[in-house]
Amino acid sequence: MPARKPNLNPAFNIVRVSHVAFGVRDLAASRAFYVDTLGLVVCDETADALYLRGVEERNHHSIVLERSPEPYVRSLGFKVAGEEDLDRAAFWFARKGLPTSFPEVPYQGRTLRTADPLGLPLDLYARMDQAECLLQRYAAYRGARIQRIDHVNCFTPDVQQSHDVYTELGFRLTEYTETDDPDPALWAVWMHRKGNVHDLAFTNGRGPRLHHIGMWTATPLDILHVCDVMATTGYLTNMERGPGRHGISNAFFLYVRDPDGHRIELFTSDYLTVDPDLEPIRWSLRDPQRQTLWGHPAPKSWFEEGSLFPGIVVREPALAAQPIVAR
Amino acid sequence: MPARKPNLNPAFNIVRVSHVAFGVRDLAASRAFYVDTLGLVVCDETADALYLRGVEERNHHSIVLERSPEPYVRSLGFKVAGEEDLDRAAFWFARKGLPTSFPEVPYQGRTLRTADPLGLPLDLYARMDQAECLLQRYAAYRGARIQRIDHVNCFTPDVQQSHDVYTELGFRLTEYTETDDPDPALWAVWMHRKGNVHDLAFTNGRGPRLHHIGMWTATPLDILHVCDVMATTGYLTNMERGPGRHGISNAFFLYVRDPDGHRIELFTSDYLTVDPDLEPIRWSLRDPQRQTLWGHPAPKSWFEEGSLFPGIVVREPALAAQPIVAR
Amino acid sequence: MPARKPNLNPAFNIVRVSHVAFGVRDLAASRAFYVDTLGLVVCDETADALYLRGVEERNHHSIVLERSPEPYVRSLGFKVAGEEDLDRAAFWFARKGLPTSFPEVPYQGRTLRTADPLGLPLDLYARMDQAECLLQRYAAYRGARIQRIDHVNCFTPDVQQSHDVYTELGFRLTEYTETDDPDPALWAVWMHRKGNVHDLAFTNGRGPRLHHIGMWTATPLDILHVCDVMATTGYLTNMERGPGRHGISNAFFLYVRDPDGHRIELFTSDYLTVDPDLEPIRWSLRDPQRQTLWGHPAPKSWFEEGSLFPGIVVREPALAAQPIVAR
Amino acid sequence: MPARKPNLNPAFNIVRVSHVAFGVRDLAASRAFYVDTLGLVVCDETADALYLRGVEERNHHSIVLERSPEPYVRSLGFKVAGEEDLDRAAFWFARKGLPTSFPEVPYQGRTLRTADPLGLPLDLYARMDQAECLLQRYAAYRGARIQRIDHVNCFTPDVQQSHDVYTELGFRLTEYTETDDPDPALWAVWMHRKGNVHDLAFTNGRGPRLHHIGMWTATPLDILHVCDVMATTGYLTNMERGPGRHGISNAFFLYVRDPDGHRIELFTSDYLTVDPDLEPIRWSLRDPQRQTLWGHPAPKSWFEEGSLFPGIVVREPALAAQPIVAR
Repeated sequence: MPARKPNLNPAFNIVRVSHVAFGVRDLAASRAFYVDTLGLVVCDETADALYLRGVEERNHHSIVLERSPEPYVRSLGFKVAGEEDLDRAAFWFARKGLPTSFPEVPYQGRTLRTADPLGLPLDLYARMDQAECLLQRYAAYRGARIQRIDHVNCFTPDVQQSHDVYTELGFRLTEYTETDDPDPALWAVWMHRKGNVHDLAFTNGRGPRLHHIGMWTATPLDILHVCDVMATTGYLTNMERGPGRHGISNAFFLYVRDPDGHRIELFTSDYLTVDPDLEPIRWSLRDPQRQTLWGHPAPKSWFEEGSLFPGIVVREPALAAQPIVAR
Repeated sequence: MPARKPNLNPAFNIVRVSHVAFGVRDLAASRAFYVDTLGLVVCDETADALYLRGVEERNHHSIVLERSPEPYVRSLGFKVAGEEDLDRAAFWFARKGLPTSFPEVPYQGRTLRTADPLGLPLDLYARMDQAECLLQRYAAYRGARIQRIDHVNCFTPDVQQSHDVYTELGFRLTEYTETDDPDPALWAVWMHRKGNVHDLAFTNGRGPRLHHIGMWTATPLDILHVCDVMATTGYLTNMERGPGRHGISNAFFLYVRDPDGHRIELFTSDYLTVDPDLEPIRWSLRDPQRQTLWGHPAPKSWFEEGSLFPGIVVREPALAAQPIVAR
Repeated sequence: MPARKPNLNPAFNIVRVSHVAFGVRDLAASRAFYVDTLGLVVCDETADALYLRGVEERNHHSIVLERSPEPYVRSLGFKVAGEEDLDRAAFWFARKGLPTSFPEVPYQGRTLRTADPLGLPLDLYARMDQAECLLQRYAAYRGARIQRIDHVNCFTPDVQQSHDVYTELGFRLTEYTETDDPDPALWAVWMHRKGNVHDLAFTNGRGPRLHHIGMWTATPLDILHVCDVMATTGYLTNMERGPGRHGISNAFFLYVRDPDGHRIELFTSDYLTVDPDLEPIRWSLRDPQRQTLWGHPAPKSWFEEGSLFPGIVVREPALAAQPIVAR
Repeated sequence: MPARKPNLNPAFNIVRVSHVAFGVRDLAASRAFYVDTLGLVVCDETADALYLRGVEERNHHSIVLERSPEPYVRSLGFKVAGEEDLDRAAFWFARKGLPTSFPEVPYQGRTLRTADPLGLPLDLYARMDQAECLLQRYAAYRGARIQRIDHVNCFTPDVQQSHDVYTELGFRLTEYTETDDPDPALWAVWMHRKGNVHDLAFTNGRGPRLHHIGMWTATPLDILHVCDVMATTGYLTNMERGPGRHGISNAFFLYVRDPDGHRIELFTSDYLTVDPDLEPIRWSLRDPQRQTLWGHPAPKSWFEEGSLFPGIVVREPALAAQPIVAR
């Protein structure tokens, strides 16, 4: 059972997860995947980078693709409420002995680059250039008609510790998996700031690594359409898992891999979680419907593969891994 | 009550309605409407004409747009089963004293150009050039993702006579509206050859004129999407009626007007009608739900306006018109 | 132009709008409407009241129906973050000279009954009995498969004042309508606490009165299905407006009236608003697409009728009303 | 390559496949599955049988469930155009030396019970009792909102022979799978009478056995909903395959097994096939996308298991079976 109460007065105010930057080896191939196939909108494009967003997003971008010899995910971008939150955050991280710097980041105001106690790289900022909301530019809808980034999901070597860190930072637990031991251990957690199931999830495994980012669509038919598109444009093998429904979060999902192996979840159908008295939902590690309410079990790759953060040491998990691959 | 039994052995075998040719004043404006907005596929394009089809159609085209100083609809195109049916048809029409000719028509085999006894121009043919089925070219889906032409709906000055003519030609009645008189009169009929609610419908009114052609989509969401697109790309006033549901045919519908006023119905949700013992469904002229199971009542234009066949004399209807415009 | 900045540190923490209580004359008729037709779930039922919720809601109820000789809406129920917020709220309202009491309310913890400076009755509470989340009890889905209450929309005689009050209470403006005068006046505002377009909206008009409550569904097809159901079960005239899409909020909507005339909006398709730098969207009072991006214009009743709060004096609005009824 | 031309003048006129009768061991369990879960409508119910239909069907039933010590499928029911077709059919089958009888069958007019040359049992009839069309009884929609039976799919030991028999009977080929040999052999065929992809399909395998019956739904969301329902009401293991999309027929599908193992396909998204010049689509046996355009590969059971016709000798197929189970 999760031990800690929600922290209603965190040291600084994180609003939501907002973006990630992926290192990719072939920008043209990535453009064909993210823009021509998934249907994300190009906000800006340089020789070395592509800035993408969904149709409802007014932040300049939620995905950055950076040309790179090797794939990576640079850091997880979180928006904080105001500039003063950045200073409070810098103080908080520095006091923990964690690295802090304020690099220049395109399209963004002051940006704190740091890492959590487990080594997970974080970019915090309060202001990003704003772009036109395209929600009512219906003629521009393409592919899966992705509306916005929703969450990031990471492997961590210590779910309990990750849970405790983000609980202290004001994240609230909505659902969790634990072992059925007399002294149960946390296996995975879903935690939010913005009022739905999660901004951030952690699963037991070699980490810190990024498992996937979740992009939200309005209806399951948008996801079925992108299945049809991918299956008929040479992306069949990029469809790693799904469509199906998770027990946890109630998401109707499809997991796809980009040309560099970065994993994107297209999903819809979670729920509102703003009530302070909302009890987290517990799932047993032995209940396969937590992962797959229905649909085919996840393949081995889904349990094992993830994107690396550059320069971050990956550790083996404290708990022995035992994913249920077969039904 | 419709007096005539279905004719199971008509003089020749009409397979289905297959296409119409519209005269339009500005091909570029029509292209913007039909292709860029509704999402129809261009099969061929010349300086003077545009050939369009839906994603499942293998016939070369279901809509032809022809540059013209004035709008018109040339004729209704029906496919017959074989070449011999054309000869039988020519004999049948000639024997009735109706005009018959075999003009050259692009992309089409031998074509019988004729007219029914009320003056409605018809093109009959057995072979059209075949095009690639794009049903599984999902990446090319646009707009309303129209799959195919489904039916044509015409004003006629004499619904009973139109009904009798097409019954003789093997069309089967599926639904009809009649007056509540002791001696009820037919007000409108829906008749099919291909096995769903209709290939051809007639409504009492000044005619012969074309009321609309019906294009089929797979789901109501395709129609809602094109509402969103039209409302945000300058086509709001082209949305004449709907979305809503007809009692008759159970169609979920949207009626739009093209830049020349030709009326297109986008619809889905009718049903299979191949059973010979399927009883036609009767609707009273006084039941407004026959037209509008739900949704706003049709505007006056919907009852009064239609496309003209060139050179065809339009007659007043035998029955006094009394459309229910208000709810 | 809205004058006030968001208040990031309000005197107490309102989490979201959570429920309303309607006085209804015939509980059986209301049950047939809300439960058998719209598909809401019955949480509890007594001789004099019916407690209802949507499938994702864990609060005991979001709609209470109370047997009453005359229709009314008792008050707007808002959830606050904790018990201490109730005390701070009582202090805040009392200091403004507004009535405060703590009546016993079934299924609810301590409840502050008060009214805003314009007379709008409010119930604030921190704890309500929790019920089972039925989100994954799919076999129990009925009607419109309503997931949860989303917002309440009220007529107010002074939109600017209402806006200022709720801004002070921490509500954030997402969209607004104003006149095109050199000194523009606020006509309508949409304000939220929970992170989507609104918890609370105000429109210029005789008030305070409730215009409608908004109930959220997962997809537009759920709303189309309830249109089909209502049109074929004797509720056709209860469908007041729609389906259609609002420009404001991007909602795909249907407005229905219950047997006592209370107005319920079924809607889907708004967007996330948690970013502090999200700029409110301005709409001109002269732009009809703010109300109706597409779909038929609202009828007169939609502009004029609303539910009364018992014992509350209704005032004429400061601005002269000029709704656009015709297209 | 299929050798035979379509027969446009068959000896008698089969309209469509119309029903099957399943032997089931526990009527209550079958009722819970077909009625409470899939949502089929009960037309009649006796101590020993249950008669079911979809919401658009006017034939009294499309599925009969008969109490039986062992599961079976009695025969495939086809509707013919008229009584005289039954006599012509009896003559045709008798001349081939095949069994013919005219048993009494409830709710049905004169019924010819026979078998095709491979032993597949057939019931032919012209008239069945008609029931109310429930298409616009929307309040009664449940489960997958199944509209009608669409097709039956059988294992046959000789696809070429089955193809030739039904071609002679006027069935038209729409899609087929063949080996890539210099002298290619037919592996599977899809053949229709009613104007969409199929009434009847045959796949190489131990037969004659029934592989599945296909029931049509209006949209993919109906199928996703029944996935949600089955996964949360104890029917998870009855979901054998899907949801996914077939290359062949373009069907969006879900295969479920009833409590006795009979296989039901819920599907939507095929296309119109009435054109006489519609060319059959060829698929190579080596192309896995013919079966699975996307979605997980079918399990072994899907390739091996089928329902038995009582008293019919099952033969090994002429071609060696080589289903592609893995992706």
